[in-house]
Amino acid sequence: MNFKIKKDVLLTNLNYVSKAVSSKNVIPILSGIKLVLNKDGLHLEASDDNIIIKTFIDKDDIIEINEAGSIVVPGKYILDIIRKLPNETINIETDGLKILITTPSSEYTLNGMDSSEFPDYLLELNKKPIIFNQKVLIDIINQTSFAASLQESRPILTGINFKIKDNTLEVVATDSYRLSRKIINIDTAIDDNIDIVIPKVSLMELLKILDSEGNIELHIFNNKIVFKFDHILFQSRLLNGTFPNISTLIPEDYTLEVTSDLNELYNIIDRTSLLSDSDKNIIQMEIINNELITTCDTLQVGKVEERIIVEKNNNNNLKISFNARFMMDALKSFNSKKIQILLTNETKQFIIKDATDESLLQLIVPVRTY
Amino acid sequence: MNFKIKKDVLLTNLNYVSKAVSSKNVIPILSGIKLVLNKDGLHLEASDDNIIIKTFIDKDDIIEINEAGSIVVPGKYILDIIRKLPNETINIETDGLKILITTPSSEYTLNGMDSSEFPDYLLELNKKPIIFNQKVLIDIINQTSFAASLQESRPILTGINFKIKDNTLEVVATDSYRLSRKIINIDTAIDDNIDIVIPKVSLMELLKILDSEGNIELHIFNNKIVFKFDHILFQSRLLNGTFPNISTLIPEDYTLEVTSDLNELYNIIDRTSLLSDSDKNIIQMEIINNELITTCDTLQVGKVEERIIVEKNNNNNLKISFNARFMMDALKSFNSKKIQILLTNETKQFIIKDATDESLLQLIVPVRTY
Repeated sequence: MNFKIKKDVLLTNLNYVSKAVSSKNVIPILSGIKLVLNKDGLHLEASDDNIIIKTFIDKDDIIEINEAGSIVVPGKYILDIIRKLPNETINIETDGLKILITTPSSEYTLNGMDSSEFPDYLLELNKKPIIFNQKVLIDIINQTSFAASLQESRPILTGINFKIKDNTLEVVATDSYRLSRKIINIDTAIDDNIDIVIPKVSLMELLKILDSEGNIELHIFNNKIVFKFDHILFQSRLLNGTFPNISTLIPEDYTLEVTSDLNELYNIIDRTSLLSDSDKNIIQMEIINNELITTCDTLQVGKVEERIIVEKNNNNNLKISFNARFMMDALKSFNSKKIQILLTNETKQFIIKDATDESLLQLIVPVRTY
Repeated sequence: MNFKIKKDVLLTNLNYVSKAVSSKNVIPILSGIKLVLNKDGLHLEASDDNIIIKTFIDKDDIIEINEAGSIVVPGKYILDIIRKLPNETINIETDGLKILITTPSSEYTLNGMDSSEFPDYLLELNKKPIIFNQKVLIDIINQTSFAASLQESRPILTGINFKIKDNTLEVVATDSYRLSRKIINIDTAIDDNIDIVIPKVSLMELLKILDSEGNIELHIFNNKIVFKFDHILFQSRLLNGTFPNISTLIPEDYTLEVTSDLNELYNIIDRTSLLSDSDKNIIQMEIINNELITTCDTLQVGKVEERIIVEKNNNNNLKISFNARFMMDALKSFNSKKIQILLTNETKQFIIKDATDESLLQLIVPVRTY
């Protein structure tokens, strides 16, 4: 292998695949990035056995291709070296299992590994992928993923459920104490219904390399999903198991609808939680007349009472307790100025939604405090 | 106690004293901030028994003083609450040992402590303090403190030595592997020579509240130092023991003087150290003809060679090994475009200094690598 390339081009693509470089050295070869150079361009690939990322630099974006070849370079070092090199043009060549990175004033010789030892990941594609804008996927992940579970005790809840039926995509995450649901329409007509669970950790890595422009293709298989965008292929395994059926969890009736300014509500909950136990973060919320009052009383520290003016759909009053952190996470997922809270009673899960947009719903299970 | 105050005024002063609030609850009262309100204004005070910070808000900066009084408020909570309150005007009053913080929409009741239980720290002042600009002290701390030891095995080296003789202040920090020395002239004539060691941790806290404008007074006593600036008094204990006499450590002769661009040198050392063992960070530097070449060869990872053009005062060549992290710390302390390295041989400590300014000197002990 022997080629000359502009620093920025190489760095951008190393950055993409580095998100899949394994930090745990269970399989040594997976600590590397596989480079394959041929007359068409340079293929880069990395995997932590959970996700696989492949990217491609077209020959037109490479200054000189002198000799085809392939090698696995140590992921941790190559990225730092290329990032810190000041020169615009970088020479890369191999000598057996050594990789030489040179500029007029710098010379690096890194120990590489045999590319034939790198697992042979074949990334299949569908004929009819689901396509939408990258920005839409960024929003979906940001607005739902925080509600997924961090506990491995119920592995299926560490994933995010993507369900497609007809032209509707429903995305749900829940840790069983709260739930986020986003519903969007998609243009692609699909033949079969889809119901998959993508690990949250995979989507978090994907989020780091998504751009807000351009489309993304979703190629869904039985046990894996491939995202294709720009020159990038990103594959994640899927979680096995059945995601809970949430249709029964979302209350259809409620006794009180409260409309509040989003920021005002966020801020009083943030301040009220200052006095709460930092583990459980429990605060009380009371809707009384035209006021929403949040309170927290902690024996050792003291107590707080914050109030804002809200609108209601009837004269009902109500008092409820919940985890302030959950409420703040939920509120942060909305872009609107006003939100609605749909409440039933002090034990029933309640809903938060945008007053003007039905696509996003957040649900929180209250805490009993008596 | 009962007063009304603008949020920003209170927050600024709480921020100052909070740097001394004890995070370890060895003495519970020291987790608090003492407030004393009288007709002249509001005194704030905190201490972790290592440093003591006092500040004062003049009555002219307080909207209303309704009732004098004193209390100790929990430091951790009061700062967060005041920071997050949106209102411009805040009411504070006490009810026994409770402190009430109120605005039209918020009401906090915190459990306070009896101010008479707070240790009575008397902060003495000298008649003839040493005075210089805060910016000068900021530079002194930034340019020397990194060389102080983090090891408690030789406690005296965890401090920074301030020595005043005639009109000269010499500041030295060393962990015995490297040394920083800054010398400045001061205007104040002092009667007795001064030779004190201030804990680095105290100076790090002081640094957080220093401003780059205005003067600062140093009031030095046998076992403590008081810094006075703006409305703030900052006291630190001094370290007991004798700071090493460094005059014999700084070589007077050298066999080679190398002049280099500061940034170029910093960058090649930074890149060369990428391949070094991350614990010891050892790299080699060779001066040969008109080049300075840094190298690092790590069996498992690979090797690197970086080179820049330098100027020399004679034809001597030399090869030396050192801790790249120490060299980078030393180089970062200079503001100049060019620096000089004064070398003797591969085992003798070497000096880095500004080519045009003698006030700052950095010294590094090489590492033997054969």
